[in-house]
Amino acid sequence: MIYFDNSATTPVSKNAADAMHDMLIKNFGNPSSTHFLGVVASKALDEARQNVASAIGCDKEEIYFSSSGTVANNTAIFGSVLLNRRKGKRIVTSSLEHPSVSECMKRLSDEGFDVVYLPVDKNGKYSLEDLQSAITKDTILVSIMLVNNEIGTINDVKNIKKAVKASNSPAIIHCDAVQAFGKINIKPSALGVDLMTISSHKVHGPKGAGALYVRRSLNIKPYILGGGQEKGLIAGTEATPTIVGFGEACKEINYKEQYDYMLNLRDYAVSKISQIDNVFINSPEDALPYIINISIPKVPSEITVNFMSENGICVSAGSACKKGHRSDVLTKIGLSPERLDSSIRISFSANNTTDEVDIFIDKLNQVIRKVRT
Amino acid sequence: MIYFDNSATTPVSKNAADAMHDMLIKNFGNPSSTHFLGVVASKALDEARQNVASAIGCDKEEIYFSSSGTVANNTAIFGSVLLNRRKGKRIVTSSLEHPSVSECMKRLSDEGFDVVYLPVDKNGKYSLEDLQSAITKDTILVSIMLVNNEIGTINDVKNIKKAVKASNSPAIIHCDAVQAFGKINIKPSALGVDLMTISSHKVHGPKGAGALYVRRSLNIKPYILGGGQEKGLIAGTEATPTIVGFGEACKEINYKEQYDYMLNLRDYAVSKISQIDNVFINSPEDALPYIINISIPKVPSEITVNFMSENGICVSAGSACKKGHRSDVLTKIGLSPERLDSSIRISFSANNTTDEVDIFIDKLNQVIRKVRT
Repeated sequence: MIYFDNSATTPVSKNAADAMHDMLIKNFGNPSSTHFLGVVASKALDEARQNVASAIGCDKEEIYFSSSGTVANNTAIFGSVLLNRRKGKRIVTSSLEHPSVSECMKRLSDEGFDVVYLPVDKNGKYSLEDLQSAITKDTILVSIMLVNNEIGTINDVKNIKKAVKASNSPAIIHCDAVQAFGKINIKPSALGVDLMTISSHKVHGPKGAGALYVRRSLNIKPYILGGGQEKGLIAGTEATPTIVGFGEACKEINYKEQYDYMLNLRDYAVSKISQIDNVFINSPEDALPYIINISIPKVPSEITVNFMSENGICVSAGSACKKGHRSDVLTKIGLSPERLDSSIRISFSANNTTDEVDIFIDKLNQVIRKVRT
Repeated sequence: MIYFDNSATTPVSKNAADAMHDMLIKNFGNPSSTHFLGVVASKALDEARQNVASAIGCDKEEIYFSSSGTVANNTAIFGSVLLNRRKGKRIVTSSLEHPSVSECMKRLSDEGFDVVYLPVDKNGKYSLEDLQSAITKDTILVSIMLVNNEIGTINDVKNIKKAVKASNSPAIIHCDAVQAFGKINIKPSALGVDLMTISSHKVHGPKGAGALYVRRSLNIKPYILGGGQEKGLIAGTEATPTIVGFGEACKEINYKEQYDYMLNLRDYAVSKISQIDNVFINSPEDALPYIINISIPKVPSEITVNFMSENGICVSAGSACKKGHRSDVLTKIGLSPERLDSSIRISFSANNTTDEVDIFIDKLNQVIRKVRT
């Protein structure tokens, strides 16, 4: 098997899986219980919180566990709007956000909020001018992703704080960093964001855990309501085994060492792909090297994905979160229908090798030959 | 260790934990991916869905996975209100609901909805008359729990449908069955409810999974928004390993065989407790036998819980979901402050024995002697 779909989800670290099994069997207490079993579970939760905080460079008190990146995004957006709704009606976001952000924006728009979508160029980037003019003094929230999940565009989110200050806006700044986490430095204070979303299963942790970074002293309102877990921000009994697995996976993150490896792997793959006739790279040149989106005109995405799958290679057509739909992201960066419908996403982890790229290229040539002739 | 806190959470079934570990290591695909790894994950999800559906007696298409009972309750309540909000402003609930229901009601009340809380008697029961007069033709939602988590009161929720019909109300009927699930028959069609919440970690499954039963053809709106998972109702990448563990735990449910055992265990415990001077049973006589709430005047709850904990026995003061707060439930059934502040909850599973009850009673006598003299 060759797994090139790491932006959809990643193989789970053995340490994370083992730690989870241990928690399940030996440490099943409810962390809210005051007896000894609860205390042990609560300590495990606390340790995991420290592991996650260390991985992004914040205090552990600023980490709030959620069950997914989606829940963290929903909490960030609706929680900010609930806090700030008396200050204005305007919300600024990019037009390439993940559905867990863009669907929230649609609902807020239906409810009467004035949602401004920043347009993007062919590289998926919004302009600083558009950002500055979009943020006004009645803007209550800016939510922009750090790395795009389909093409790998890296946004310069540091500029948001400057634009917010320049316009005297009360806006809370949220950044969906799910695809950036574990791959580049995302220290929230350095990026100038108030809220940041990360997810476990994109960094070799288990599915079922995510976290929202909330800058100390910012008190957004809860969205999922209940028994006061996570200091009242995200209710529901914490999935302690999953969260402990998330913490273990965070301990194994080493983006500084991996980045050069990924650059080389990406460049190797891009040079091989470029040798194939009439195949286009949709990702920008300065994209995150973990993601390469390509189009193979005349070879529909599903045919490539299925052919690869039959040959033990996992790649995706668009993102796993939009099963069966034409990609919004690729539409918005202006791809022609021909390139849209023939696009696939290759997404690496540090486990991948140039040998795997060679096998993939061989199969890619096969499917192209088969379909185009 | 003696674990008498099964209403807070339960020990995880070995089969469930092993199945999870297997999924984590061997089957890490994203169930929304279209390649072979995604298909295998999607099949595992489907099997788990069937296991859960079989445990409550519904079709698997009526089961929507959530990350907790809390998320299922939030989805049921806000999703119903979003669907029905043009039909009326009135919502009926009981005054003993779990915080994951009652906190939603508070927010809806803040937003201008007319929330009617049915009063309860000393057994925690609302009257049929109150229910009937509360439900009017502009009532859009009725949400009442099946079994109370602190005292074990079993509500006759079958009556809700009759009351809704009698008043020509468009109300959707939701039932939080988290504490009833796995212990009594909760077949939704037999109870006449449209929506029902269940949770994995109360039936020896892992934390991090729950489900919402949604009656076929009822299209409540989503609350957590994103990539369209769970047929668009509950977004976020499904926690497949946890959900598979939930499904495994469901296969081990056998409430018909267990119920008589639990009745005997409860009666045994109650007879022993009744022999102690000045100790009161707060649970009604016809409560779910898995839960016994008692008060020990002059012995504060925390002292009993801590003393038991030091002796390897887990019991709770109130529910784990309201850490450190005086119980709303016990206040609402009219307990005196003396009984309120000295209450503890004993909650059994089928793993518990009369021998364990004997040890508990011995320790209970010790702590009483120590504090009262």
